[in-house]
Amino acid sequence: MLAAHYAGNRTMTVEEAEPTPPGPGEVQIAVAYTGICGTDLHILNGHMDARVNTPAVIGHEMSGTVAALGDGVEGWSLDDPVTVMPLAWDGTCPACLAGNAHICQNLDFVGIDSPGALQSRWNVDAALLVPLPATLPLRHAALVEPTAVAVHDVRRAELEPGHKAVVIGGGPIGVLIASVARSFGGEVIVIELDPVRREQAADLGFIALDPRDDTVAAVEEWTGGAGADVVFEVSGAAAAVLGAVDYAKVRGTLVVVAIHPEPRPVNLQRVFWRELRLLGARVYQRDDFDTAVALLDSGEIPADALITRTVPLADVQSAFDALTAGAAMKILIDVQAGQEHS
Amino acid sequence: MLAAHYAGNRTMTVEEAEPTPPGPGEVQIAVAYTGICGTDLHILNGHMDARVNTPAVIGHEMSGTVAALGDGVEGWSLDDPVTVMPLAWDGTCPACLAGNAHICQNLDFVGIDSPGALQSRWNVDAALLVPLPATLPLRHAALVEPTAVAVHDVRRAELEPGHKAVVIGGGPIGVLIASVARSFGGEVIVIELDPVRREQAADLGFIALDPRDDTVAAVEEWTGGAGADVVFEVSGAAAAVLGAVDYAKVRGTLVVVAIHPEPRPVNLQRVFWRELRLLGARVYQRDDFDTAVALLDSGEIPADALITRTVPLADVQSAFDALTAGAAMKILIDVQAGQEHS
Repeated sequence: MLAAHYAGNRTMTVEEAEPTPPGPGEVQIAVAYTGICGTDLHILNGHMDARVNTPAVIGHEMSGTVAALGDGVEGWSLDDPVTVMPLAWDGTCPACLAGNAHICQNLDFVGIDSPGALQSRWNVDAALLVPLPATLPLRHAALVEPTAVAVHDVRRAELEPGHKAVVIGGGPIGVLIASVARSFGGEVIVIELDPVRREQAADLGFIALDPRDDTVAAVEEWTGGAGADVVFEVSGAAAAVLGAVDYAKVRGTLVVVAIHPEPRPVNLQRVFWRELRLLGARVYQRDDFDTAVALLDSGEIPADALITRTVPLADVQSAFDALTAGAAMKILIDVQAGQEHS
Repeated sequence: MLAAHYAGNRTMTVEEAEPTPPGPGEVQIAVAYTGICGTDLHILNGHMDARVNTPAVIGHEMSGTVAALGDGVEGWSLDDPVTVMPLAWDGTCPACLAGNAHICQNLDFVGIDSPGALQSRWNVDAALLVPLPATLPLRHAALVEPTAVAVHDVRRAELEPGHKAVVIGGGPIGVLIASVARSFGGEVIVIELDPVRREQAADLGFIALDPRDDTVAAVEEWTGGAGADVVFEVSGAAAAVLGAVDYAKVRGTLVVVAIHPEPRPVNLQRVFWRELRLLGARVYQRDDFDTAVALLDSGEIPADALITRTVPLADVQSAFDALTAGAAMKILIDVQAGQEHS
């Protein structure tokens, strides 16, 4: 089998490895496709070296089929199409006991804190498997995990049919949030600086605005002077955070989706004046995963538009480099391509 | 009658004035006591000159009795004890139509945007009157308005019995929030820099901490490693905003009560990581006012401890100066003292 490792120093290495059989309670997955996400780029660029022990097999957006069953595993059969919800919680911390296991205070994020899916054979706890319908192509199913992020964000916002939402940032997660919000009955404006991404958002049927235009006036007019019900901050930019509150209606909601490594200036006067609600949203819960599978299977998520291209595992470094340069939306790694069936 | 005006240049003037009869739908109130709040201090110190037209009779925390009825006023009798909920909304803006009239997009805050209670006869729209029980001393009733602010903040936080709350700032609003939170069944830590205020909070039965100590560790221990259910930021300090998120549990709530005229750095990484909820809370709704009256009448609000002293209207400048210097908690103006009954 082949496995890609983050080796430090902005380098991914691809090496032959000997597959290990699944342990008790584990399933071995023949990984089909693994998507590369923003967190993987942070890892490659060394921002998470304090957390990630090199060499590390990373990757957590994936699809595949069951290749082997460990002792005691029930309910799964060979060749079942699956994805993985990559969260392992301790079940005993205050967050878990309060029903928020998905953000366990000692969460193991599989693919970051423990080995991930950029390998052709991957052993995971059977409890993390999510079944896929036979009608969903495995290529599209590699988007289940980021779609589940978007579902979680939209649910967190309590977006209802008829709501008007502003999505700041038209990258993969922004487009997924816009798509999920639309499937939930919302109307969506996407604000994006990059003209290619902005045009893509428009092609997908969203109102796409340039942040250098008077977007506050545009949202005001769009909402009859009320302001948007929900604003999603997906860009990660400090200026976007500062301006985001200006789009929201009285008692509107701002969801912080992007990672902001530094404290950001927030207009608390506006938060106070309009009694806004600012929500953090992280990863997903099992319901979000199931909804993501259903939305992708129904075709409501523009999977083909999001997947810029698919490359073999041997080319993983070039995929990371292209994404770091902002030259693609989503690149999938075809983990089995060019290998002996092993 | 006497009336105190903000005249600009950090000056309050007290002058004789001719009372005008109440207009149609208005009630004339013989104002008994008017409290001075932080917003009044902002006005005195010129921070709100763009909004306040001088000379301006300010003041919005008050109690009094009905002195005269305008045409068409029903349901009120002479000498009825009353307070005023000083909000006049337009009823037609998107916020009003959505049920949030208290933060109407064109709100007239009586006592700021229109004449207030620092005068011995005050004509107000009868719709703004709130009846007081005969058992509630008028001196205590002057605290209804700030208590309603605290009730609104605690309700906004959805504080439930058994919740643990951290209140950052032990001034009048901080102590009122702590008191309301306790009356709703919460346990409260008050964090306050000033040793006199800290001692007072402790005397009132709250756990009182010095922010220079390791308050995060103290809250962690107090909550069994979970973090606080609710954090109220009442200090207005930038450093308090930055640290406030560190007290909150996973999915905990941070209520922004203080006015922050400048954007403040917020640790959005923590908001994301723990899926926190940050809420703006402004003024109050009618239910909050009614609850505030009931809490003051029941003695659950430490009114006497909050009222540092009562001074006649003629001494209003000295009261403002003492409060600006931080030398008192709450000073009430006895609006009728030393005057002919007029």
